[in-house]
Amino acid sequence: MNPVSLFDLEAMAEQVMPHHKWTFVDAGASDEITVRRNREAFDEITVNPRFLVDVGNRDSSIEVLGEKIDFPVMVAPAGSQRDVHPDGERATAAAAGSMGTLYTLPTGSGYSIEEVADVATGPLWFQLYHFDDEVTELLVTRAKAAGYKAICLTIDTPSPSPKERDVRNAHMPTPGLYWGSLLRPVDRSDLIMRRSVGIPDMMDWEPPEFTGLTWERLEWLRNLTGLPLVIKGIRTLEDAVMCAEYGADAIVVSNHGGRQLDCTRSSIETLPEISDAVGDNLEVYLDSGVRRGMDALKAIALGARGVFVGRPLFWGLANGGEAGVRQMLDIMRTEFDRAMAYCGCRTVDDIHRGLVSLNSDFRTRV
Amino acid sequence: MNPVSLFDLEAMAEQVMPHHKWTFVDAGASDEITVRRNREAFDEITVNPRFLVDVGNRDSSIEVLGEKIDFPVMVAPAGSQRDVHPDGERATAAAAGSMGTLYTLPTGSGYSIEEVADVATGPLWFQLYHFDDEVTELLVTRAKAAGYKAICLTIDTPSPSPKERDVRNAHMPTPGLYWGSLLRPVDRSDLIMRRSVGIPDMMDWEPPEFTGLTWERLEWLRNLTGLPLVIKGIRTLEDAVMCAEYGADAIVVSNHGGRQLDCTRSSIETLPEISDAVGDNLEVYLDSGVRRGMDALKAIALGARGVFVGRPLFWGLANGGEAGVRQMLDIMRTEFDRAMAYCGCRTVDDIHRGLVSLNSDFRTRV
Amino acid sequence: MNPVSLFDLEAMAEQVMPHHKWTFVDAGASDEITVRRNREAFDEITVNPRFLVDVGNRDSSIEVLGEKIDFPVMVAPAGSQRDVHPDGERATAAAAGSMGTLYTLPTGSGYSIEEVADVATGPLWFQLYHFDDEVTELLVTRAKAAGYKAICLTIDTPSPSPKERDVRNAHMPTPGLYWGSLLRPVDRSDLIMRRSVGIPDMMDWEPPEFTGLTWERLEWLRNLTGLPLVIKGIRTLEDAVMCAEYGADAIVVSNHGGRQLDCTRSSIETLPEISDAVGDNLEVYLDSGVRRGMDALKAIALGARGVFVGRPLFWGLANGGEAGVRQMLDIMRTEFDRAMAYCGCRTVDDIHRGLVSLNSDFRTRV
Amino acid sequence: MNPVSLFDLEAMAEQVMPHHKWTFVDAGASDEITVRRNREAFDEITVNPRFLVDVGNRDSSIEVLGEKIDFPVMVAPAGSQRDVHPDGERATAAAAGSMGTLYTLPTGSGYSIEEVADVATGPLWFQLYHFDDEVTELLVTRAKAAGYKAICLTIDTPSPSPKERDVRNAHMPTPGLYWGSLLRPVDRSDLIMRRSVGIPDMMDWEPPEFTGLTWERLEWLRNLTGLPLVIKGIRTLEDAVMCAEYGADAIVVSNHGGRQLDCTRSSIETLPEISDAVGDNLEVYLDSGVRRGMDALKAIALGARGVFVGRPLFWGLANGGEAGVRQMLDIMRTEFDRAMAYCGCRTVDDIHRGLVSLNSDFRTRV
Repeated sequence: MNPVSLFDLEAMAEQVMPHHKWTFVDAGASDEITVRRNREAFDEITVNPRFLVDVGNRDSSIEVLGEKIDFPVMVAPAGSQRDVHPDGERATAAAAGSMGTLYTLPTGSGYSIEEVADVATGPLWFQLYHFDDEVTELLVTRAKAAGYKAICLTIDTPSPSPKERDVRNAHMPTPGLYWGSLLRPVDRSDLIMRRSVGIPDMMDWEPPEFTGLTWERLEWLRNLTGLPLVIKGIRTLEDAVMCAEYGADAIVVSNHGGRQLDCTRSSIETLPEISDAVGDNLEVYLDSGVRRGMDALKAIALGARGVFVGRPLFWGLANGGEAGVRQMLDIMRTEFDRAMAYCGCRTVDDIHRGLVSLNSDFRTRV
Repeated sequence: MNPVSLFDLEAMAEQVMPHHKWTFVDAGASDEITVRRNREAFDEITVNPRFLVDVGNRDSSIEVLGEKIDFPVMVAPAGSQRDVHPDGERATAAAAGSMGTLYTLPTGSGYSIEEVADVATGPLWFQLYHFDDEVTELLVTRAKAAGYKAICLTIDTPSPSPKERDVRNAHMPTPGLYWGSLLRPVDRSDLIMRRSVGIPDMMDWEPPEFTGLTWERLEWLRNLTGLPLVIKGIRTLEDAVMCAEYGADAIVVSNHGGRQLDCTRSSIETLPEISDAVGDNLEVYLDSGVRRGMDALKAIALGARGVFVGRPLFWGLANGGEAGVRQMLDIMRTEFDRAMAYCGCRTVDDIHRGLVSLNSDFRTRV
Repeated sequence: MNPVSLFDLEAMAEQVMPHHKWTFVDAGASDEITVRRNREAFDEITVNPRFLVDVGNRDSSIEVLGEKIDFPVMVAPAGSQRDVHPDGERATAAAAGSMGTLYTLPTGSGYSIEEVADVATGPLWFQLYHFDDEVTELLVTRAKAAGYKAICLTIDTPSPSPKERDVRNAHMPTPGLYWGSLLRPVDRSDLIMRRSVGIPDMMDWEPPEFTGLTWERLEWLRNLTGLPLVIKGIRTLEDAVMCAEYGADAIVVSNHGGRQLDCTRSSIETLPEISDAVGDNLEVYLDSGVRRGMDALKAIALGARGVFVGRPLFWGLANGGEAGVRQMLDIMRTEFDRAMAYCGCRTVDDIHRGLVSLNSDFRTRV
Repeated sequence: MNPVSLFDLEAMAEQVMPHHKWTFVDAGASDEITVRRNREAFDEITVNPRFLVDVGNRDSSIEVLGEKIDFPVMVAPAGSQRDVHPDGERATAAAAGSMGTLYTLPTGSGYSIEEVADVATGPLWFQLYHFDDEVTELLVTRAKAAGYKAICLTIDTPSPSPKERDVRNAHMPTPGLYWGSLLRPVDRSDLIMRRSVGIPDMMDWEPPEFTGLTWERLEWLRNLTGLPLVIKGIRTLEDAVMCAEYGADAIVVSNHGGRQLDCTRSSIETLPEISDAVGDNLEVYLDSGVRRGMDALKAIALGARGVFVGRPLFWGLANGGEAGVRQMLDIMRTEFDRAMAYCGCRTVDDIHRGLVSLNSDFRTRV
């Protein structure tokens, strides 16, 4: 079967993946209310196309922190890719580069920071979970040395929050395939010797209990490398304002795909108020629920510069490694280009707020 | 089984049609959100009937660009009718005429402009897709010569947008049965010789990439024949205003039955704001989702002069060619007449805004 | 099985009735949107109970056009009862009387006006369909002579509107069991001889095309007997105001149980605006969708004096004739009494608007 | 299977319980609209988490009428626990105490007031149904003597209201296992001899018809013991205001889990207006629909001091008596702690209104 949409890729992936791995990719927090809401909110946004305007020679490129990419759909950081395909993060990075877009390497990578940089042809970001200061310094220093363009700090996991379907499956990432960003090429035993918190304690895939990183310490983090700082996991206007105040270069409005903490609003529902408030101070991106090129256009119309896809990269990996991820991104690019044509846009800058309508159920804060 | 409603006809058609042909008729764009919304929006409109008034001797006729028809349900242009029944567009045109209503011949007809005109007894419009200027001039000139009353330009396909269920079925119209409006009686090889873009390249059923037709060129199109110009595919207030500014004689508020571009509002949801803005400047019609005579009354109460049905013509064709289409139109006429009686209306002019109520979910632009 | 609620009775009735008779009772007009909405609207109304008040010795009686009944749930006129049980309207009338409530005899009765009056112990109304003036005069004169307390004119059938499920079943009431109100004890052949429109032409169960009865002629109707005039079938504020202007004594806000004309609002949705406007001028009753004693309390809180049940009388008849109807009414009485207790009401007059809340989806006219 | 959430416990309980006992626990009044709404309303509330704040060393304790408990989820009074597990109320009380929370003993207990006090290690309340003054005086006096901290008067059962699924099952609590709070250690025959209303008459599990307790008599009740008075069953702002006026120390906003009177709003929907009005005058608690630690946080954000769980105690009992109840409470404590961490709260006092959002469907009184 040749996938026509990402939903086809999803169905194909479910058929070829072991149940517990599929579930790890698919599951969300608690009752998965937010997972469903992420999609429903996109589907409830309507578009107002414009016709009989010149839409020849369309250009879907954007700039992300100064780096030009070919279309505004990027690849989110998502751990455990090597558990789905042996090429793991190397395949995904290569696919993103060959399609002309950005890849974000997760801390929970099966290949090291350097191994992924070796195969990447497009811009890279490094996603950071903060465990303790020593590990963080090690990771971001290596990322900078390997040419990563930004540090993308995930802030939305202050406490372990295992997904219930994973608990029922007793799912654990394959030992040795998860914390590659830490382990290689730096020798594992070496790292253990240097630190009191040993790596074996970290093989548990959940982030640990609160590790002391607060708003006040962002300056310390930034000074470690001087790289642009992206804050990922923004669910509220208040936290977005904090990011602007503390000098973040960009934010990713995200509810972690509904995987961390159920019952939050969908990302796209919170986007308008956030972009209105801080869009002039930093770059605003969005993930969580993006499955269609039209979703990217909707998000951009509501104030994002671009979007990220997470689970779909696994669907691509499961359906053929690098080629599968490329196929996934190619579908998104084609759909986004078509959405631009139907909305009378020749460039991404032509996408404006008037192209979408929000129904009365679209949530605003009360 | 004797069909009681169009939904009966639909179920009967699905049973007798090959799967891929049924799907071609039935499918919509992407996730078919707009397809569903087209129906849901009609069903959510409530009517406020009025009783104990004189509703004897009802007259359901209207005038469409000066042509009188017996009831305000007309037949939309819809390609590939000969793929469903050998009599194709000739059957549909004959049925429409015998029932006293208007037929719109699609560019993608299985019979030529002239062959359909030969059997038609009611008024005809010619629906135009613009491929290039030479073909357009050829088509509209022939349409005028054959007695068609208006050129109905479809503007809502600026780029190919194959329906995903068709892609999965690898559905293609039967060669030779689709571009009949172009091919006959003008000889096919002759046309090929005269043009650099050969007909074989056009057998693909999708409209091509943007072909250069913009608002500014409507005057050129109109001057080719001097016939009234109807613009079909209006989804927004903004484009409706453009039609008025550029001198269109009528518009069809339409989302192409949800077949081109998903996620737009339903046609009926956009109608009130459009008819309020331009209803005094041009004639406003509507299609997309009309399945009940009551739907026609609802649309007229909200500002349309009349409505078109698209997919139902195929259901009629599949259930007996001309007789089936006539049966479909007869059900619509009976239902519309009953709706008038229950709403206390003796003429179509008696239908007014107060006869319908919109619930709070009925979308307005935000 | 011992029925606990009317829904139990309904399920039991479906099992014992022939399919076409069940369908005749169960079906609604067209897509049955209004049938569903009648229930959904009741279910969406919330109640605000009040506790720790004295609810001993409750009295659920009301006065209806001066007649006292024991609780505010009455029996609506509904034709063809003899098709469901041989005792038909006689059983239903006897049950209503023995339970202390009012019965409305339909024109389409299987027993004559006089035969029903013979067995009734409670107050009776006579429901009138107007076919022509001669028949109407005959019917209302006989009703008055037999002791009926009011003429209840149904106005919501200006044109035939067969229910589609009946059409598919080719359902017809059993000959001789339907127009009993006309036929007996007046001899059938005699009636035929006296009129140009013969009774056989009227065996078709649908009301005929518009018969000329308009607001202006209500005075003629009233003068035939001098009995109070109840207008049944009010769906709009406008028609309610007309009733007040033309001197009706009472109205029944009703959409005919969704059986005549689909797509209207539920009766209970239209009640507040109607009772606000005309409640001081005439008595306001309601039917369509009442299935719970709590529904009666909700309707009374929103401005009705009492309610009628229609389909449930058939469920009772099918489950044991008079005893079944009595069981149905007994459930309603028990439930209504309990609803009063929980809402802190000792009398029906204690029921007030503040006892119910309407959510934001409850329809108001736009 | 190891339960991950209360919903797992629920599914496990349904599998091990006899159908009629399961149904007794599970069922709600009439159509169970309120049962469903209790959950839906919680699920529709969204949370607005805050990150990068110090959430180490969290403290989830609260004070309830001066008694400190470890987390704000308490055990509601719910009769017939001994019908689900032989240890019944003794197991539940012991589990609550060992988990550091409060237990409310129901009047309909399988063990006596004193027997439960003997095994309890945490604070106890005694829930009172008023049957007559003599029994009430006996009960509350014994409760005070046994060390119970408050009298929790249930006011929302002014009249019997059997759940329909129980009626269909002809479910009755096992004789001798229900009115234990009355029977032991006081000898049953002794009680019978002392009163005209014999205990056998009370074996019917439904509360009797209105017993004469009104607002004015609360002072009498309070004076019997001098213990704090908690009023349970508040569904409206009006009754909450009455509680404040008549000097109650606390209220439980509750619709009895939807088990007494259908069609009321969910408890959580009524909470904001109630806590706004009387939160400064008395302590406000909530039950009905609480199934997640996040629900407790939502309720606290909307004005409650803490919440109670009812049906879940039976799920715990069915899955292992005291250990099962402890497991249930442990899940709730873990979830609540996580919810605090994700919302940036170190103490329960940090939970504030801004942490939750209500969508436009959240009911307000109209």
